[in-house]
Amino acid sequence: MSNQELLLTDVSGCTVAPLVREPLSADAATELAAKLKALSDPVRLRLLSAIASTATQEACVCDISAGIELSQPTISHHLKVLRQAGLIDSERRGTWVYYRVVPDALQQLSRLLGNG
Amino acid sequence: MSNQELLLTDVSGCTVAPLVREPLSADAATELAAKLKALSDPVRLRLLSAIASTATQEACVCDISAGIELSQPTISHHLKVLRQAGLIDSERRGTWVYYRVVPDALQQLSRLLGNG
Repeated sequence: MSNQELLLTDVSGCTVAPLVREPLSADAATELAAKLKALSDPVRLRLLSAIASTATQEACVCDISAGIELSQPTISHHLKVLRQAGLIDSERRGTWVYYRVVPDALQQLSRLLGNG
Repeated sequence: MSNQELLLTDVSGCTVAPLVREPLSADAATELAAKLKALSDPVRLRLLSAIASTATQEACVCDISAGIELSQPTISHHLKVLRQAGLIDSERRGTWVYYRVVPDALQQLSRLLGNG
């Protein structure tokens, strides 16, 4: 998913305003709910935070999983959910897969929930 | 739930930093996930937005449900989920129940997902 697709827009193509400013449309609410649902799991929040809080906002799965006592397949499943929601991207380099936060993905959610 | 209880704090009682700044603790992630889960439904997002976008950030259920084609019991169920998550409060005045957004509840979520 490209960054462009991640932007919530209304039917006229305009970026959706923060939900405190005007009522969300049904379409915008459906799209926003899908992203929030991907985030509404403690493990996924910790994985995302582990990636986002690195100096480069990028991390190898071996680093991400440090301190999270779950099996590698379980962690991979959660990373996949975050990727499908457009919150992180991944790239294979040699043996390892590196994950990074999609630029502006969290900022956009933050803006929609805040005052803009 | 008081506003004070809504603030995510770590074990030392300090307010939790935005998740891009430092890795979320397990406890903070659990608390944040519960609030995001309450928000991760299109109907609940629209109801919350309908309340939050009024001039007074307060609305009667009769106003909130305008334009949302669901039964009153279904709407009441969703409002209850938002209330239990500490995102809205309610108050009965005469015949009607009025809902309002808990001050700073959305701003706090916005801050945790953003850059602070």
